[in-house]
Formats: sequence, structure tokens, C-alpha cells
Amino acid sequence: MQKPLVVAKRYMPILSWGRHYGRTELSGDITAAVIVTIMLIPQSLAYALLAGLPAEVGLYASILPLFAYALFGTSKALAVGPVAVVSLMTASALEPLGLGTLSEYVAAAAVLALLSGIFLLAMGMLSLGVIANFLSHPVIAGFITASGLLIAAGQMKHILGIEASGHNLPEILHGLWSNFAEFSPITLMLGAATLGFLVWVRKGMANWLQGRFRLSAATAGTVARVGPVFAVIATTLVAWLFDLPQSGVSVVGEVPTGLPPIGVPPFDLSLIKAMAVPAILISVIGYVESVSVAQTLAAKRRQRIEPNQELIALGAANISSGISGGYPVTGGFARSVVNYDAGAETPAAGAYTAVGLMLAALFLTPLLYFLPKATLAATIIVAVLSLVDLSILTRSWAYSRADFLAVMATILLTLLIGVEVGVASGVILSLLLFVWKTSRPHVAEVGQVPGSEHFRNIHRHEVITDPRVLTLRVDESLYFANARRMEDLIVNRAHASQDELKHVILMFSAVNEVDMSALESLEAVNARLQDMGISLHLSEVKGPVMDRLKRSHFLEELTGEVFLSQNDAFAVLRNRQDRAAE
Amino acid sequence: MQKPLVVAKRYMPILSWGRHYGRTELSGDITAAVIVTIMLIPQSLAYALLAGLPAEVGLYASILPLFAYALFGTSKALAVGPVAVVSLMTASALEPLGLGTLSEYVAAAAVLALLSGIFLLAMGMLSLGVIANFLSHPVIAGFITASGLLIAAGQMKHILGIEASGHNLPEILHGLWSNFAEFSPITLMLGAATLGFLVWVRKGMANWLQGRFRLSAATAGTVARVGPVFAVIATTLVAWLFDLPQSGVSVVGEVPTGLPPIGVPPFDLSLIKAMAVPAILISVIGYVESVSVAQTLAAKRRQRIEPNQELIALGAANISSGISGGYPVTGGFARSVVNYDAGAETPAAGAYTAVGLMLAALFLTPLLYFLPKATLAATIIVAVLSLVDLSILTRSWAYSRADFLAVMATILLTLLIGVEVGVASGVILSLLLFVWKTSRPHVAEVGQVPGSEHFRNIHRHEVITDPRVLTLRVDESLYFANARRMEDLIVNRAHASQDELKHVILMFSAVNEVDMSALESLEAVNARLQDMGISLHLSEVKGPVMDRLKRSHFLEELTGEVFLSQNDAFAVLRNRQDRAAE
Repeated sequence: MQKPLVVAKRYMPILSWGRHYGRTELSGDITAAVIVTIMLIPQSLAYALLAGLPAEVGLYASILPLFAYALFGTSKALAVGPVAVVSLMTASALEPLGLGTLSEYVAAAAVLALLSGIFLLAMGMLSLGVIANFLSHPVIAGFITASGLLIAAGQMKHILGIEASGHNLPEILHGLWSNFAEFSPITLMLGAATLGFLVWVRKGMANWLQGRFRLSAATAGTVARVGPVFAVIATTLVAWLFDLPQSGVSVVGEVPTGLPPIGVPPFDLSLIKAMAVPAILISVIGYVESVSVAQTLAAKRRQRIEPNQELIALGAANISSGISGGYPVTGGFARSVVNYDAGAETPAAGAYTAVGLMLAALFLTPLLYFLPKATLAATIIVAVLSLVDLSILTRSWAYSRADFLAVMATILLTLLIGVEVGVASGVILSLLLFVWKTSRPHVAEVGQVPGSEHFRNIHRHEVITDPRVLTLRVDESLYFANARRMEDLIVNRAHASQDELKHVILMFSAVNEVDMSALESLEAVNARLQDMGISLHLSEVKGPVMDRLKRSHFLEELTGEVFLSQNDAFAVLRNRQDRAAE
Repeated sequence: MQKPLVVAKRYMPILSWGRHYGRTELSGDITAAVIVTIMLIPQSLAYALLAGLPAEVGLYASILPLFAYALFGTSKALAVGPVAVVSLMTASALEPLGLGTLSEYVAAAAVLALLSGIFLLAMGMLSLGVIANFLSHPVIAGFITASGLLIAAGQMKHILGIEASGHNLPEILHGLWSNFAEFSPITLMLGAATLGFLVWVRKGMANWLQGRFRLSAATAGTVARVGPVFAVIATTLVAWLFDLPQSGVSVVGEVPTGLPPIGVPPFDLSLIKAMAVPAILISVIGYVESVSVAQTLAAKRRQRIEPNQELIALGAANISSGISGGYPVTGGFARSVVNYDAGAETPAAGAYTAVGLMLAALFLTPLLYFLPKATLAATIIVAVLSLVDLSILTRSWAYSRADFLAVMATILLTLLIGVEVGVASGVILSLLLFVWKTSRPHVAEVGQVPGSEHFRNIHRHEVITDPRVLTLRVDESLYFANARRMEDLIVNRAHASQDELKHVILMFSAVNEVDMSALESLEAVNARLQDMGISLHLSEVKGPVMDRLKRSHFLEELTGEVFLSQNDAFAVLRNRQDRAAE
């Protein structure tokens, strides 16, 4: 009877940590939940706005998904919900569908969450979390930076109080430029003031609180984190007192009161087909973002997360978002850090946060009527500009041109064409660059380091060589993309040698694989050298490669021998020559 | 003034070999040209039929391209012209365009040749011949085999005298099955007899000639190669004498007399757009086929071909095919072997063959009126079945599952969906499998082979280890797809060790690259091991990898050292421990 429980515990970590849940955990979790709730109310509304959705959708996406993650997640501190980059990708996926009404748009967002959830769940069930590894770090960094810039540019319309839309920088800038003349001075004043305040909140508020009110660094930091709430309250009051909507300031307006609507959103197959690729991209990007936040926080407390279980948890979170009127969610950086700093001990903190947001959805929404959209835009701009880190360009340039090329392409294509093309190009380009590099391998002629059994490049070290024995160290796995190149390179090198040359040793210490194309090329090298009266030897062939070669006829045809070590090979073959010459 | 001539010689090899052209070369070339011409007349007509084109297009495609290759080619024996696989790919590219009239279809075929020629020429100018290496040998073998089966199945309609079309096996079989009842008994008799004769020509004729007429093996072989001509003559006479077209036997019919029409074919941009991808696939497949034939023949006479110049020559051949009413061409295996065996000494043999075919186009075409299509189909079937080699499946299964998977997918998708999908999937799958393999690298714990400075896997060899020093040999370049996996693997391995463990050495002899993602993972490993009180060392780092690491801060942060050899590392660190323990 133990087995089902073990399986259940594996898929529902709550069964493990839930049994030891005590007063300490409860108090830590409740404190964290209160702070995160206060922070999430404006953030959820703002990100819904960014996704082109009504404000309440942001709240809905922050309720059920939190319960789902609390049940299935393995990170003790991760807080899931709407995040900036995924919201941008949602807008970018939905707007080209040309949906007629807002309710169709809202339903499509829920379907997108559902698709993304099903995909993540399937990946988790199949233990395919490794797929996220195919996104290189520089490509992710470049993509996040470009998305941040795109989001900030896109929000400028709310600060200016004009209409403008677009999925890439040229479109957004064109929209801003065309409608610039209609900008609303009061909106701009309000927006600029909020922006200024929020920058101060981020940069100076914690220090000021510490100096002015003698708060501890931790408390001051937490208060600063929820700072945007002050801007929300203040600007809402101003808009209400001065009836700013009359003066052309856009406000959030009527937000329905009540719990999220539960049910499967209406959809048709053509919608699913059109959203399949965006759903996969959103899932992968969301997963990578979430897992890296979770790993960073887990490492700080020496905890571990389980990547495949995280896929399942994020899948469950997105499915619950989809059936409760939400849109795609993932683990967010800012909220998770606040949750962690405020002392969250278990995923239950997320569930308490969800209760807080449920209360907000039930009772607070009428208060949001006069909340200016410019305030929300300012919140977003300040939040995303912290994601922008152009230093990845200089760092990758200094380290590796291939990485630089991948980052540069990701950033430029994301800005100039859009998020989907940008991230897909980054992934494909980094794979192609890897293949390209391995197709042009480094081959070093090596000699013996005097007084050792060690062999190194003749051009980098003072080494002993022998004109009768040529040793080439092949610095790459041999496979179809480099097989013919290696073949020509080895034979040409042998051609260029003195007539004394009798033995070519291929040092296979860096050859991790010999595929069938490469096997054919090795057979050709063997035959071509034989024609030249030169025998071919191998040294330092690894176990797995040797196992494979034994499955072919190559070793029988080989004119020379396979030596365990390069030192043996060099010693034996030099000696053999000496005897032959006598 | 020397420089322009060197450049001209490089791009026009005729300027080199043409200066030494004498009587020996002339006589060899003329003999070869006569034999190849006789062989090419039926073959050109048959392949045009296979491409869905009028018979004369096959002749046109065998005239100007031969002159172009003679000017620019580097192979002394290659004969270019229509070939089976490229003809099939041409049909597969043109038929989905839904062109209304035959003349539009013919023009589109010429545009396809033009596009393919421009693409090849551009690749040659940019020295991108290496791109052909991205087709793995097993994928090419699988593709050729599947194409051969597809072509043979597609020609059955001519043997049966019924209508049937399709680009994949299900379509072709469905067509044959639906119209089977209408088969023409006389056509079938004629076709079956020709098939039988041609099989005998291929298998037994040379021996019979040697025995019966005491011909030398070489002469008998050459006569057997042109054997299909006897079938052409005999069946044409039979069809004429018995007026077989009256009895429902399809014949070639009116073939226009005259030289190829010179001029740029009519085209529009939408046509070019629709044919761009097929043109690229045709170019790459044609190039790979042509270069491997040329290399095989060059190796026999210890000559060399220049792959990038071959791109230029094939580009020129296709462009001239496009402007002279032809369709895509490449170097063919059968005709090149005949050319070689018959004693062709220089590319001039191709030019003489072109003259022969020009005469055929001028004077012979009226004689082709009664040539039955079933004869041409039988010629094609016998020719392509020699391409079919299913042993690639068993050979790749025995050697490597990844290669097997790529071959299997190529064969199945080519047969079931079509040539373009088949070959594209083969290429993409083999690349993905390579990346997949490198993303799951082999990591071996190694120890010292007693009495040597050599370190090998502890599970495969009897070696010396030390509980305080753990050496892991990383058998793969480190890059984004395996960086995080390696990070976890190394740290988990250190976790699992005894508390005695003080040093981890990563033996980098097989690490040919460390990209930026992997650098970040190495930094993380360094930090995580440091937390555990373990220092991290590297050994046997190659020159290029070391150069790269020096461009980062990693070496400064490294808690341990970088050792030239693993032997140094192991000796120094064991010794250091001994002293520390004192």
C-alpha cells in the first residue's frame, strides 16, 4: 500500500510538507501573503492591461493558479501569476487573430492559458524539462531585455494619453509619432509624476525609510516593495477628487465585482490551431523564467526544486487560470523575491495570497474605478526597465562571437519584428551556430612534452616529434557535418609530410562520438593512407566510441593498431621504426 | 598581369587543361562521347517523361549544360544532364503549382533550372560547398533508395498503359489500383518484355558477349551499357510495323526537330516564390550526388576535384539548361561511369557528347515517333532499381540507433509524403539527433592506470583513485544544451562522495568548446563546491578553450588551479592532502 502514496507524494509535494506544517510556518506564510497581496493588486491589473485584457482578468489569473501551484509546486518561495513578458507574448498571440469583440478576446486568452497548461503538463508527465536547456543563457537574457524595452515603449501611450498599438518597435514608435499631437497634458503630468515617484521608490525609498523612521533594512525594503500601492491610492484619489476622467484622463473604470467565472472557455479548432505555436513559446519562456527564479531562491536556502514537477505545477496553474477567466501565468521574479524576503516558508503562502486576492476581487474592485491607466503604465515601465540589461551584448562580445551573434539577433528581431520571431530565431540560430562550430573542428598536431607522457600542440608547447610518426589530435566528435572535412584534412596533412612518414596516429581523446558518416570517412582515410604506404593508428579511444567501432568492420580493416594511450602509441611506433631501419 | 590569369584559371579550369590538349586526349574523348551519346538519347527522353515534360526537353537539357560543364568543371569524367532523382524532384516541385498548359509547365521547369543554377553559382562564389556536408551519408542513402522505389512505382502506369499520378507511394498505388481494370494488354506485354530484356542486359549481357563473340571484358561491358538502345530500336520498329498506337500503346509521338530554343523563360514573382524551396533542395541533392560521383571517379585516377568550383560549374550548367528550354540537371552516376570507362580524358568529352545530342535533336527526332512510352518506363525502372539499397537500414541499425532513426524517417517520409518532406526531415532530424546526443553527455569518473600517467574510466579499467580527489572526465563540449545538466551532475556527484572529498578535478581533454551558458554553469559549480568546502580544478584544458576562459573572470574566481596534465593534477593534489593531514 506504500507505492501509491509514494507516487502521490511525488506528484503532490503538499503531501510531504503539509504533514509538518506548524505554527512557525503559518506565521511566516501569512505575513508573506499579506505583503504579496498588497503588491499584486496593482501589478495584476497592470499586466492584464499590458495583455490587452480587462483589469479583472489580471485578478482572476492570480487566484486559482496560486492554489494549483501550492498543491503541485516544489519551490517554497515561488509566486505564480501574470508576469510582464508572458503578458506581452499573450497580446502578441491574440491581437493577430482579429477577434471581433472583447469577450471573444477574453475567451481566447483563457484558451491560450489552457493550451499552455496542457502543453506544460504533458511535458512534465514525459519528463521533458530538459527541453528548456535548448534556450541558451545569452539568448534568454537578450530576449528578456528586448521584451522589457518593447513593453516600456508600448506603455508610453498610456503616459501620453494617446492611442497607439503594435507588436514591435517600429509599429509602436510610428503609432506614438502619428498621434503625438493629441497627447493629454493632465495625463502626462500624472504619469510623469507617478514615474518619478516609482523610480524614487525603487532607488531611494528604502534608504530614506531607514534614515527617517529608523526602520530595519529588511522592513524598509519590504515597504519599498509595496511602494507602488501608495502611487495607486494617491493617483486614484486625485482622479476622483478632481474628476479627471472629465479632463481626458483614462481610468480603469467599472470592474466587475465577484469571484472568477469557473468554466471551460468557448473555443473552436481554428482558434486552437492559430494559437498552438504561441502557446508553446509562452510555455517554454514562462517555464524557463519560472524555473530560474525558483532555482535562485532555492539555492539561497539550500533547498532543491524538481524541474519536471515544476512543469506539472505550472501546467496545473495555467489550466486553472484557463478555466477561471484568466490568462497565461508563470512564476514571477519580483513577487517571488518579495514572498521570499517576507518570510514565506511553504507554498501555502501562495494559497493565502490567493485568498487575499479573492477578497480584493469581491470587495475592492469598486474602489478601482478612478485608478488612472497612466499609473498602471508607470508601474509596468519601472518594473520592466529593471529587466533591461544591455551589458549582455558587451559581455558576450568579449567572450564569444557566436554567443554575441545569437544575442544580437534575438534582441534585434524581437524589437524589430516581435517576440515570437525574436525568441524562435534566437533558439534556432544558437543551435545552428553550435552545429556550424562543430562542423569546422580544431585539429592539432601534437608532440610529447619532454619528461612526461603528455602530448600537446606543437605550436603551443616545446615538444618532441618524429618525422616518421605524425600524431593528429582531433578536437571534435566526428559526425556527418565534419566527416568529409576531417577526411580531407588528415589526408592532405599526410600528403604534405616528408616521405619518411610511415605512421599516422589519430589521438581520439576528444572524440566523443563517431557516427556512421564519420565511420565511412575513417574507412576512406584508412584506404587512402594505405595507398600512400602509411598505416593509420588510433590512440586514447574512449570506451563508448570503442564499443561502437567494434560493431563495424573498421577495426579489422585498420592498417595499424589501437593504443590505450598516446604515450604507448608514440613509444611503440618510434621503436618499431628504429628496428625496421636497422 | 599574372593575377587575372590566375583568377581566370581558377574559375575556368579549361584554361589549364586546354593548353595541354593533344591527340591522345582527343581520341579518348571522342570515343567516350560517341558511346555516351548513344546511351543518353533514350535516357534523356525517359527522364523528361519522368519529370512530366515533353521528350525533347530531355534532349535540350543534355546539350548546353554539357558545354557549360566542360568550361567550368573540375572533374575529368563527370557527365551532366537529366538524372532520375532530380527529375522526380522536378515533377514534385512543378505539379502542385497547378499550371494550366503544357507550355507553362515547360517554362516553369526552365525557371526551376535557372533558380537552381543561380543558387548553386552563389554558393560556389561564397565557397559554401561545405553545406552539402550537413546531409549525413545514411540520410542520402535512405533518400536515394526511397526515391528509386517511388520512381519505379510511378513508372508502372506506363508499363500497364493506364493513367495514375501522385507524389508518394499511397497516391501512386491508389491510382494504379483504381485504374487497373483499364490496363492495355499489348502495352503490358511490350513493357514486360522490355523489362526482362533490360534486366538481362544489366545482369547477363556482358558475360554472354564475352562468351559468344570473344569480346574483351571492357568492350563487352561498354556494349552492355548502351544495351537499352537495342530495346529502343526494336520496340520502336515493332510499334511502327504493327501500328501499335492503334491498339492503345502510348508512344512518344511528334518530337519537334531543331536546336534548343535559346532565351530566358517567361516567369513571374509568385512562380519564383513557390519554387524557391524546391530549387534549393534540388540544388543541394543534385550537388551532393554529382560531387560524390566526381570524387569517386577522381580518386580512381588520383585526380582531385574542387568542391566549390563544382558548385560554380553545376550552377553554370543549370543556368544554361534554363535558358535553352531544359530543366534541372546534375552529374549522373551511370553516364559518368560510362564516360570514364570509355576513356574520357578531359571535360571536352562532354562537349563532344553535346554535339552528338545536338545532331540527334536536329535529325533523329522523327524516328522517335513510334518509340513506346513503356520502353522508356522500363529503362527508368531498371536504372533506378539499382539505386535501391535497403541494406542501409540493417547497417545503420547495427552501428548506431540515431543513424538508423534518421534513415528510417527519411525513407518512410519520402515514400509516404514525398521527396521534399522526406529529405528535409532527414536533414533536420539528423541535426536534432546530434544536438540531442551532445545534450546528454557521457561523464566518466577516472583514475590512474598503474605505472602510467594515463587516466581512464574507473568502471572499465583497474585504476588508482583517492577518496580526497575526485576526477571527472567530461566527454563533450560544454554548451547551452548541456550546461545545466553538467552543473547538476558534477555537484550531485560531489554530494554523493565521502566527507573526505576535498578536490574535484574536471578533466577537459574532451571539451572542445565552453560557450557562455556553460561558463555561467562552471561559475555556479565553482561556487556550489566552494560552499561544500571543495575546491575545483581543471586539467588538460586545450589551447582554444583556455584562450576563451582567459577572456572571462572565471579563472580568477576558480577556487583551485588549472593543470597542464591530469597526471600533474592528481600528483600535486594527493601530495597537498598528505601534507595537510600531517
